[in-house]
Amino acid sequence: MGLSLAEARAADAADPIRPWRERFHLPEGLVYLDGNSLGPMPRAAAARQRELVEREWGEALIRGWNACGWIDAPQRVGAKLAPLIGARPEETLVADSTSVNLFKLLAAGARLAGRRVILTEAGNFPTDQHIAEGVADLLGLRLERAPRGEVEARIGADTGLLLLTHVHYKSGERWDMAAVTARAKAAGALTVWDLSHSAGAVPLDLNGAGVELAVGCGYKYLNGGPGAPAFLFVAEALQERLVSPLRGWMGHAEPFAFADDYVPASGIGRFLAGTPPILGLAALESGLDAFEGVSLERLWAKSIALFDVLHGLVEARCPELACISPRDPDRRGSHISFAHPHAFEICQALIAANVIGDFRAPDVIRFGLTPLYLGFEDVWRAVDRLAEILDTQSWRDPRFAVRGKVT
Amino acid sequence: MGLSLAEARAADAADPIRPWRERFHLPEGLVYLDGNSLGPMPRAAAARQRELVEREWGEALIRGWNACGWIDAPQRVGAKLAPLIGARPEETLVADSTSVNLFKLLAAGARLAGRRVILTEAGNFPTDQHIAEGVADLLGLRLERAPRGEVEARIGADTGLLLLTHVHYKSGERWDMAAVTARAKAAGALTVWDLSHSAGAVPLDLNGAGVELAVGCGYKYLNGGPGAPAFLFVAEALQERLVSPLRGWMGHAEPFAFADDYVPASGIGRFLAGTPPILGLAALESGLDAFEGVSLERLWAKSIALFDVLHGLVEARCPELACISPRDPDRRGSHISFAHPHAFEICQALIAANVIGDFRAPDVIRFGLTPLYLGFEDVWRAVDRLAEILDTQSWRDPRFAVRGKVT
Repeated sequence: MGLSLAEARAADAADPIRPWRERFHLPEGLVYLDGNSLGPMPRAAAARQRELVEREWGEALIRGWNACGWIDAPQRVGAKLAPLIGARPEETLVADSTSVNLFKLLAAGARLAGRRVILTEAGNFPTDQHIAEGVADLLGLRLERAPRGEVEARIGADTGLLLLTHVHYKSGERWDMAAVTARAKAAGALTVWDLSHSAGAVPLDLNGAGVELAVGCGYKYLNGGPGAPAFLFVAEALQERLVSPLRGWMGHAEPFAFADDYVPASGIGRFLAGTPPILGLAALESGLDAFEGVSLERLWAKSIALFDVLHGLVEARCPELACISPRDPDRRGSHISFAHPHAFEICQALIAANVIGDFRAPDVIRFGLTPLYLGFEDVWRAVDRLAEILDTQSWRDPRFAVRGKVT
Repeated sequence: MGLSLAEARAADAADPIRPWRERFHLPEGLVYLDGNSLGPMPRAAAARQRELVEREWGEALIRGWNACGWIDAPQRVGAKLAPLIGARPEETLVADSTSVNLFKLLAAGARLAGRRVILTEAGNFPTDQHIAEGVADLLGLRLERAPRGEVEARIGADTGLLLLTHVHYKSGERWDMAAVTARAKAAGALTVWDLSHSAGAVPLDLNGAGVELAVGCGYKYLNGGPGAPAFLFVAEALQERLVSPLRGWMGHAEPFAFADDYVPASGIGRFLAGTPPILGLAALESGLDAFEGVSLERLWAKSIALFDVLHGLVEARCPELACISPRDPDRRGSHISFAHPHAFEICQALIAANVIGDFRAPDVIRFGLTPLYLGFEDVWRAVDRLAEILDTQSWRDPRFAVRGKVT
């Protein structure tokens, strides 16, 4: 029958990072297994947003750019992220969306690579594929999609860029970042990693893995709030060789000289485009501050334990669900996914029972196992309600078949 | 001597839109003539941000996308902007920065135009020039810059796009939008208007002027907060003929079908890229709500009156300042600029005296005359302090020569 409720509670009591849960507001009675889609509000974010809006914007007005450190926020928040991804502080920047940052790195990287093909995985997260298709279209390149198992073999003499998502948004499968990057590098290709489903939960060592370019999302495991700005990473050695296709004034060497000609800033700052989104940056900064004092190793160990507990309980109590995520921790991220022909209705029934997971078309139920604040009792309760929904087939209630726009 | 303080107060008392001032938080004792750089906080924004962060993000979590209307925010906020720019609600969208939106429209427009040249004004706001240069570079086009007086004559058979800022950020000079758009159209060129220094203060009738493409800033006269998302406008007739170069998932016809292939949404939604910045969108929505009940005509009449008062007072009391903005209301925007060899130091001395204007390199002092909340007494006090600074030459104090990063 898997872990008992008492055992789950004991595991929480023994969890060395349990105190970090207090840094988040988690609604009473809700089991939130969707922090890999939108992380919960860090308690500090509430006070920080009030301060930013009411005191900084309200009182400092335009002076806030200097007096309140707004102008440095993209680099400062980037530097706070750096230890979570194994980067140097001067290699990361926070601004714009994941899609826009991906465009910057793909277009700049394609120019540098000087080859005809951008290669990605079929079934990669759609925005990655769409943005790459747009870059290929603009630059007269070709986007090639290969099934997961054939990607590495397809890296060839005409491959300029390889674009992969480190942890697959649906299955949770994880690439061997160091091995794939090295293989691409050996073939003369640059790899762009999308870390959206990794950063903040999965161990990352970009410098150690020889990564050159990466982007990732701010509102999932990093808990930056709805539509939080995204990050980008450019290895130091590459920074001066890349020019952003989005030559906004904030990436200029001297934005306030108001010169006609574009001269990119030296360093990571050249990947800024327009004026940075200060409200979103401040919320993400609160999210990153909530990681203070916890190591990536601790987070990952907890994630593995949460996965094993949930997997064991589902195996024991919900045999009709087929796990599509790898069991081996080295081959997966921090979420677990199950296939079921009625995944949509089951997800809706779970939400009605105060357990929030994600449906991913056409037939996947996805649970985010966010180690920073999730407990073993949460997981136990989620499976308990899931088992009841399956056992009683309460998901057949017609109201659970109504499709919304975002699930 | 220009208007007296008593006359200024009487003008405020008689001002029909004086009550709108109460919708904003203006720090006690400060004269803020920089609302064209960063608008002040609408009082409603404070409560709305608390609600968004603490109740919506905090309690609704991922459900907020539907339950709290986040998913529709780019279109909903765009629709609220529409009456201020003379557009139809379904022609405007709010997301990303002005720079990024400009890139979308220039790259998509250049493709449609199919000609070799993007023409702009030398001395146009830098990000406009830089972004256009980036588009030209990516697509193998040429960016041409012409002096203001020669722009119209330079529109030729190879001009695909004309990019102009409606109101010049420095001088305040304003183009005749309808005439220039018509001239470009007659020559087979598309015009992209940057409305950053117009929207929210200057009368705009995009549909009436036959405008096809436009972008603009959310944090100036629209009072959307630091780094607020920007807007874009695409005339209905053109929407289905343009494809954004930034093919993000949120611009897909069915974002939650998670398809590999990109199919642009029909309508303005196709110009979305990544996940929209909800915190910034909500603040801008508060800014737009503050315009409710006031007409563009009222705003512009007030702007003209503020301009005339400030201009008259400076002429009478600060003869060493040379006004570089046109006096004719039909030829200018809602700010007034003066040249002085020590503009920087004078601006700094003004800030120390609690009057905030803007310095623009190399020698310009710029005052934003934001009609929605600024009063005649504000203007009187500003010139009074300015005259004292000039008369006593107190700007020569060495501490006013120290350069910061943002002024």
